[in-house]
Amino acid sequence: MTEPGTSIDDLDTPCLLIDLDRMEANIRSWQAAISAAGVRLRPHVKTHKVPAIAHMQLAAGAAGITVAKLAEAEVFAAYGCRDIFVAYPLIGPTKWQRAAALARSCTLTVGVDGEVGARGLSAAATDAGTTLRVRVEVDSGMHRSGAPAERVAELCRLVLTLPGLDLDGIFTFRGIYYPGATGRSAAEIGREEGEQMVALAEALRANGIPIREVSLGSTPTAHAAAQVAGVSEVRPGTYVFGDYLMAERGAMRYDEVALTILCTVVSRPAADKATIDGGSKTFCGDMIPERQQLKGYACAIGVEAYLESMSEEHGVVRLGPGADPQVGERIAFHPIHVCTTVNLSDELIGVRDGRVETVWPILARGKRT
Amino acid sequence: MTEPGTSIDDLDTPCLLIDLDRMEANIRSWQAAISAAGVRLRPHVKTHKVPAIAHMQLAAGAAGITVAKLAEAEVFAAYGCRDIFVAYPLIGPTKWQRAAALARSCTLTVGVDGEVGARGLSAAATDAGTTLRVRVEVDSGMHRSGAPAERVAELCRLVLTLPGLDLDGIFTFRGIYYPGATGRSAAEIGREEGEQMVALAEALRANGIPIREVSLGSTPTAHAAAQVAGVSEVRPGTYVFGDYLMAERGAMRYDEVALTILCTVVSRPAADKATIDGGSKTFCGDMIPERQQLKGYACAIGVEAYLESMSEEHGVVRLGPGADPQVGERIAFHPIHVCTTVNLSDELIGVRDGRVETVWPILARGKRT
Repeated sequence: MTEPGTSIDDLDTPCLLIDLDRMEANIRSWQAAISAAGVRLRPHVKTHKVPAIAHMQLAAGAAGITVAKLAEAEVFAAYGCRDIFVAYPLIGPTKWQRAAALARSCTLTVGVDGEVGARGLSAAATDAGTTLRVRVEVDSGMHRSGAPAERVAELCRLVLTLPGLDLDGIFTFRGIYYPGATGRSAAEIGREEGEQMVALAEALRANGIPIREVSLGSTPTAHAAAQVAGVSEVRPGTYVFGDYLMAERGAMRYDEVALTILCTVVSRPAADKATIDGGSKTFCGDMIPERQQLKGYACAIGVEAYLESMSEEHGVVRLGPGADPQVGERIAFHPIHVCTTVNLSDELIGVRDGRVETVWPILARGKRT
Repeated sequence: MTEPGTSIDDLDTPCLLIDLDRMEANIRSWQAAISAAGVRLRPHVKTHKVPAIAHMQLAAGAAGITVAKLAEAEVFAAYGCRDIFVAYPLIGPTKWQRAAALARSCTLTVGVDGEVGARGLSAAATDAGTTLRVRVEVDSGMHRSGAPAERVAELCRLVLTLPGLDLDGIFTFRGIYYPGATGRSAAEIGREEGEQMVALAEALRANGIPIREVSLGSTPTAHAAAQVAGVSEVRPGTYVFGDYLMAERGAMRYDEVALTILCTVVSRPAADKATIDGGSKTFCGDMIPERQQLKGYACAIGVEAYLESMSEEHGVVRLGPGADPQVGERIAFHPIHVCTTVNLSDELIGVRDGRVETVWPILARGKRT
């Protein structure tokens, strides 16, 4: 465990550093902007997986938290989060029982995108003598989960008839990489995502289906989506730290990105290459640079260099003109995708003025059931 | 924690299952084949990261274990492994001190590929009053770490002159994806890797440099490399479990692959697609299917289906003709790369005859410093 007070220069590598000033500013500024639009912010905490950071977001005004899996919800509930949305279709008897059990100790809202999930949750909630809040997931273009828009009314009606369920609204996740997104700006995508979901909610209401919440939006799309009248909640996650992708896509400025990965140069295989002690056990590989039109899995800070290829413990960095780091030198990087990068680590080291201020164990790391 | 005796059908998903019969057979058959060639097997335990499995490999006749990082060595040493090779260039004062400390409690061999590492290790060993065994890493084509062949003699001589260091030999990792490997068989690559390293060792010996060990080889190349006279040790890791890549490359048969990932279908976004509850937090993304000329990040077992794309908690599976899994059904998969997949999980569930026999916490998961 890393000790508070330690200088950054004395930290063993690879390690993940959080610039506390930047993170705190991100939490404040995003909350202010979303609140100013009259919309609730329910941050997706998969980005940090740390209850203490969730409490900072809640203290700033967040309406609750979003998680992807029940196992994450169980961790955040155990650490005092009282309003949790599992934005995922829960399937299987064990999941339904766990959801019903958790709903007794916090306000739990869960996703449903089909009949199997709706009926299973209803039966488990009834057995446990509790009520589960349900939001129906809409497939707005990602084609991974969610009901097609034309089947949402039928599914909402089913939820309304089933005991133990309370229909809360509709939600979607579209992101900026769904098929058809190419060439469109994130703002344009977010606006359209908001307008389509609000139109759907109004159609449902016109058909007598009570829809309280219309929830959508991610870090690149949330600001634009929040401007659409009728959107009630946005769920960005990445904004708390930012990453190389968000900076390149213009969703955040580079000087707002709060998470860096500190590595050591361990070898110099060529004049234009440096090998660092972080590979695919440190940097996520779930976004492929070519597909995202970026130069690598991570960009170096203060030097023109990109993490071009990885094996598990080796990262091969392509050096730009003038970059000539020696073996033993340290380089800090912004990863391409911060959420899955955090999931690879055991602790986040919060730093201010060059020293460790706090160390957070990543308590919900690996929680995926 | 999963209870022994549980039926596979009752396990929550996603989870990693080990077919114990297959794993035990792999440990036996690989040890027998390598031993028959008169070569030592020093398995790379990054594949499983579980001390109990390392002890099974040692009991079968392994000469010691290989790890990639010092933090892994510390875990395996704490659980009774007494002969450990860190096949990685150790760089930085903290690393050197930790290596010297660990060498007091087990036989530790470490990699060196340049002067910085050699001098740092020497100083730390001297300070700690111990001796570190050193192997010089040779770059045989991967261009990530290792000294070029023409500089190995000079580096060996430096190691011989430095106090606290004991030159043990030379090692390399080439794999089957180094630049220039395209179109070549794994056996051909392994034979050439062995012949080049043996030729280098003989040249060093002819120049008065004592080389005890010539260590190389991975799962695809180890059998061929072990046939080369003068190779003293091979270091395959993946063979203990196998994976989709190794089966496709012919390094193992599909009916020898011991690790599967059990997932549940949570949504059906299209007639030819099923979404499962495992994404990039469950399946590694460090090998890109197109680059490896495979059909996806994982292949389903017993049904024609491939994991085609992932977000963190969603895996989108492309279904072949006739495959029509319903929401709630379970599908087992072989991942494209087992080592980094294991690193994403907290436990391995050992099964026999459809029931849980043992559950191993993955004690060295995430150990990368």
